[in-house]
Amino acid sequence: MANVGIIGATGYVGIEIVRLLQNHPDINISSVVSHNFAGEKISDVYPHLKNIFDMECDELDIDKIANKAEVFVTALPHGVSKEVIPKLIEKGKRIVDHSGDFRYKSVEVYEKWYNTTHGMSHLLELSVYGLPELYREEIKNAQIIGNPGCYPTCSILALAPLIKNKLVDTKNIIIDAASGISGAGRKTDLPYQFCECTENFKAYNVSTHRHTSEIEQELSFLAGQELTVSFTPHLVPMKRGMLATIYANLNYEKSTSELIVLYKEYYKNEYFVRILDEGKLPETKNVAGSNFIDISLVVDKRLNRVIILSAIDNLGKGAAGQAVQDLNIMFGLPEHRGLTSSGLYL
Amino acid sequence: MANVGIIGATGYVGIEIVRLLQNHPDINISSVVSHNFAGEKISDVYPHLKNIFDMECDELDIDKIANKAEVFVTALPHGVSKEVIPKLIEKGKRIVDHSGDFRYKSVEVYEKWYNTTHGMSHLLELSVYGLPELYREEIKNAQIIGNPGCYPTCSILALAPLIKNKLVDTKNIIIDAASGISGAGRKTDLPYQFCECTENFKAYNVSTHRHTSEIEQELSFLAGQELTVSFTPHLVPMKRGMLATIYANLNYEKSTSELIVLYKEYYKNEYFVRILDEGKLPETKNVAGSNFIDISLVVDKRLNRVIILSAIDNLGKGAAGQAVQDLNIMFGLPEHRGLTSSGLYL
Amino acid sequence: MANVGIIGATGYVGIEIVRLLQNHPDINISSVVSHNFAGEKISDVYPHLKNIFDMECDELDIDKIANKAEVFVTALPHGVSKEVIPKLIEKGKRIVDHSGDFRYKSVEVYEKWYNTTHGMSHLLELSVYGLPELYREEIKNAQIIGNPGCYPTCSILALAPLIKNKLVDTKNIIIDAASGISGAGRKTDLPYQFCECTENFKAYNVSTHRHTSEIEQELSFLAGQELTVSFTPHLVPMKRGMLATIYANLNYEKSTSELIVLYKEYYKNEYFVRILDEGKLPETKNVAGSNFIDISLVVDKRLNRVIILSAIDNLGKGAAGQAVQDLNIMFGLPEHRGLTSSGLYL
Amino acid sequence: MANVGIIGATGYVGIEIVRLLQNHPDINISSVVSHNFAGEKISDVYPHLKNIFDMECDELDIDKIANKAEVFVTALPHGVSKEVIPKLIEKGKRIVDHSGDFRYKSVEVYEKWYNTTHGMSHLLELSVYGLPELYREEIKNAQIIGNPGCYPTCSILALAPLIKNKLVDTKNIIIDAASGISGAGRKTDLPYQFCECTENFKAYNVSTHRHTSEIEQELSFLAGQELTVSFTPHLVPMKRGMLATIYANLNYEKSTSELIVLYKEYYKNEYFVRILDEGKLPETKNVAGSNFIDISLVVDKRLNRVIILSAIDNLGKGAAGQAVQDLNIMFGLPEHRGLTSSGLYL
Repeated sequence: MANVGIIGATGYVGIEIVRLLQNHPDINISSVVSHNFAGEKISDVYPHLKNIFDMECDELDIDKIANKAEVFVTALPHGVSKEVIPKLIEKGKRIVDHSGDFRYKSVEVYEKWYNTTHGMSHLLELSVYGLPELYREEIKNAQIIGNPGCYPTCSILALAPLIKNKLVDTKNIIIDAASGISGAGRKTDLPYQFCECTENFKAYNVSTHRHTSEIEQELSFLAGQELTVSFTPHLVPMKRGMLATIYANLNYEKSTSELIVLYKEYYKNEYFVRILDEGKLPETKNVAGSNFIDISLVVDKRLNRVIILSAIDNLGKGAAGQAVQDLNIMFGLPEHRGLTSSGLYL
Repeated sequence: MANVGIIGATGYVGIEIVRLLQNHPDINISSVVSHNFAGEKISDVYPHLKNIFDMECDELDIDKIANKAEVFVTALPHGVSKEVIPKLIEKGKRIVDHSGDFRYKSVEVYEKWYNTTHGMSHLLELSVYGLPELYREEIKNAQIIGNPGCYPTCSILALAPLIKNKLVDTKNIIIDAASGISGAGRKTDLPYQFCECTENFKAYNVSTHRHTSEIEQELSFLAGQELTVSFTPHLVPMKRGMLATIYANLNYEKSTSELIVLYKEYYKNEYFVRILDEGKLPETKNVAGSNFIDISLVVDKRLNRVIILSAIDNLGKGAAGQAVQDLNIMFGLPEHRGLTSSGLYL
Repeated sequence: MANVGIIGATGYVGIEIVRLLQNHPDINISSVVSHNFAGEKISDVYPHLKNIFDMECDELDIDKIANKAEVFVTALPHGVSKEVIPKLIEKGKRIVDHSGDFRYKSVEVYEKWYNTTHGMSHLLELSVYGLPELYREEIKNAQIIGNPGCYPTCSILALAPLIKNKLVDTKNIIIDAASGISGAGRKTDLPYQFCECTENFKAYNVSTHRHTSEIEQELSFLAGQELTVSFTPHLVPMKRGMLATIYANLNYEKSTSELIVLYKEYYKNEYFVRILDEGKLPETKNVAGSNFIDISLVVDKRLNRVIILSAIDNLGKGAAGQAVQDLNIMFGLPEHRGLTSSGLYL
Repeated sequence: MANVGIIGATGYVGIEIVRLLQNHPDINISSVVSHNFAGEKISDVYPHLKNIFDMECDELDIDKIANKAEVFVTALPHGVSKEVIPKLIEKGKRIVDHSGDFRYKSVEVYEKWYNTTHGMSHLLELSVYGLPELYREEIKNAQIIGNPGCYPTCSILALAPLIKNKLVDTKNIIIDAASGISGAGRKTDLPYQFCECTENFKAYNVSTHRHTSEIEQELSFLAGQELTVSFTPHLVPMKRGMLATIYANLNYEKSTSELIVLYKEYYKNEYFVRILDEGKLPETKNVAGSNFIDISLVVDKRLNRVIILSAIDNLGKGAAGQAVQDLNIMFGLPEHRGLTSSGLYL
């Protein structure tokens, strides 16, 4: 039984990791850390856990928690992780981090898009981008996993086979995506209040969202050349779920079925990547609560353009589910262990 | 590994049973039966199951499916079960049925409230009311389990300790309850269309809902005398969840904390019954996706009246979860086996 | 053209009054006052008003705003009104206030249920309870209107004919009610965050909600004797709308149709009170966005109990719509002026 | 007072026209026609209209209704209009039609995208595309108005100034749009049931939606050359509202503020077109219930690409509101008459 501590356990990502690991046959949650709720039972903060997982929250005191686990998952507000992660590394712990800090190869790109100084750049060489479908081998032994952003996970996996095979024009990639509101975290800001966001749909951070740079980094690696993308996030009045609708101009004439064959081959060993048959389209309710990504392809012959649609649970494959997938890899467990429940659909 | 067949697997109750059993360590789904989707993969009907549970739906042909399982769960439209259940009984199969047919001791009461003839009254002696907290012993060996209605489950468990201990006036019990829309099943009627029921709240079947009689039957047994209740169901614009707010006049002066002590004692061995501490109130999101019932008590000293609040997932403890709990009992398994996942909260 | 100033115009009640008066043929909004947004256009705070109503928000400076209007509507956080209203009264202005301060005849009852000192009790004699169906004559010339709470409006009008005619037992009145989330105002508290309250249903303030005392005051006046009620509010995941389900034991045998006749007669001159025909039940979507109250009656012959159902828009007849109705009376205008638009239904 | 008849009054578009005209100072609804509800009061079908608009529905009998109005609005299921419109034209009536039949100049394009024969092509010369901002003069005296589709309205107005001024590459226009569920009409199909579409987001009709051809027709006229677009519609779990996020590559370097100036100039006389200031983005809640279109522009300097965002109410400017705007023009009334109410925001 591997021991894992969750730092920032009472945020939406943290509590989803609790939900997944609480039922995991080979991983044990040995500490849940919460600054706001230290000393309280986590099931008093999230009453759905009562009788199932009633562990008391630890204070964020590295000396006290470090010996409780081999691996720590950090899901912390920006800035706080700078004080926590270096200390854990010093003590030989492994980390799965949910901030943007360990997702970048280039400190410059990070600092430009995040408009801040990095502060832990000396640890970058210990880190790997935690997208198992691309970096499985590196994840096995990495000391720090930079768990990918939700939009990048949804976008990169949707585009990888096309980019890798140089099938599309890399100058006109458009990623139009939409997320459920849990993506904003457990915040009390006015725009996330029920009456402000139910019955409403809007875009935000148009052309400036940080995830743009994360998507561009990974797609550029796949392309073997620098590329850029347009990325526009939207907010959907629902709790969970993310859909990306992606447009790319084909370099060659390809049919929908040819591309589906290519994708099925590319992902044939990937349990969590479901390539849908021709004519079927992803819906967020089919992935909500799970670690799956559903991908469809539609070629618009008229325009020689491909539209790729991909759906994930922003808290699942886009955050907590992927963290568990990474933990499974780090511990040498089967990758889908603890992740074979379907979502709820309804 | 026990084998269970699900007849009516593609309705909302059926598919929730699939979800729960698909992850059950000791029960195997050996057949999913669907008249509408026979020959199709169930994961084509419910794409969230793709890669997890892709079984093909069987036609409803008793001769072909009977030997596939020891126990059959039936979640069928009214009327159809009359043709199915007697044949399964003849073949020695055990049944967990979701209609109202096997919930009543009195054929007369059933026929009056359901405004129909029973048609299987000769099988009533083989049946037991499938509420484990009240009929655990009888369920173990019963051939037919009449799985309780969602409102009755939510109401009876909330009132049982008070009624059993004769603490309340049985002439003035008011049960005001509300359900998510999945309670109506996978119907295409206009009132359940998104635009018709989102941003809307209403009562329905005021003073005439069939579940009234089911509640009265069980509470009368507990009281040792005939009693009546007012029961009003409402429809909440959400998928899952049910809350009952129940009013009863106390026969004696009791404080909130005294009643909470009484309830905790009464249900001390019941894993799925969570009596909340004083000052905490149930919310449907805390039980959605799980088999728990959360119960709070508030005594209004001013009026010497107790208000009991209870929350379940109408598809969980109110239907599919309870069916799995019954199956566990029938198979001699620990009652919470396969039911220890929390819901999603969000 | 009568001039009205709205103090606290950027809260949910305030902005609904803006919406209604902006289209009113005989009332002019001459000032919108907002502490938080002083100096900003109200259409920058609420962009749906752009091109329709772009007035700049005034600071809450009584000397500067007093001469702008004859009547001021106050929709202020608790406590602030104590500093505002006496000054406006001194300057001879008339007030329609949305706090609880001017809804009570008894300072003691107010102070007990609000757990505070009143602070403006010397002004109570100038005030009237602003429910036009009960106090139309007094409203005409009152200097201060205490606009009723939403739950009291919904409950009192539903019960008035029964109480007035002494048809029900006054010791067992149960009011079970539910409101959309806008009832909490434009707050940023966690429980009103989208992810916390969508797909959720819960009760709150069980047996302690302040509106209980307001309901009891008015029903006691109607009954000619002190009476008490049980009142339980719930929160529905929708923006607007309120439904009360009310239980009362009949003193005499009455049929549903007899009571409907009685109600239609009682309210025959009330444009905003719609008594539904037998068999029809109110739904919040039918009143949302309007100033109507829909009322149904169902007698449960079995129990000799009547269930009254009433629906309003908590922001309409429960707040802003009623304020406009009061303003119409105060200005000698037809009561429905500016209030004849239906809601949206969808 | 001009008389208008509404044929198909009980669908979602029809009832929104009723809502708008019922409060219109210069237009009178002289007949509401409904095949399904003939002989019933429309306020029994839509109870929010009770006491406000209780007209009885007429049967669809042209001879009986023709003399009731000068103009008829038709909002009929596909196919039915073929039998109705020619007869009304014969009787000299003017029509505002909501089908696709009178939106096209080319019968071939219509028949290809609608996969049917037109059947009324002889009437095309009497018709004009009912987008007032483009065809105001023609609408004044046209006998048939083909009221534009919702997606085309939202897309064409968002792109017109750029296309007209030849500022963007016409080979790479991407229109990614999303609609509330009322866009599907008052249907009882399974995908529009509450439990199937709440908490869900999906695309549909990818690369094949009929509105693509309507958008291309109008943009091609504006461009003075044939152009094509990618158009992908999505379904948002909300009742009303539509947002288009549009991508186009700039032919010249332009800043966001330069383009905003251009748009404000282009639409300076258009009451219903609101060009938002730099940094502000449209949200559907700001237009829901109104006839406005909100448009924002963001230039991504890095990519020399402009993102245009536009929001309408699919039932407002996308259907019923635009029909009323057209009626105002046809009757020589001020264009905003009866359309100056804001939406509800919440």
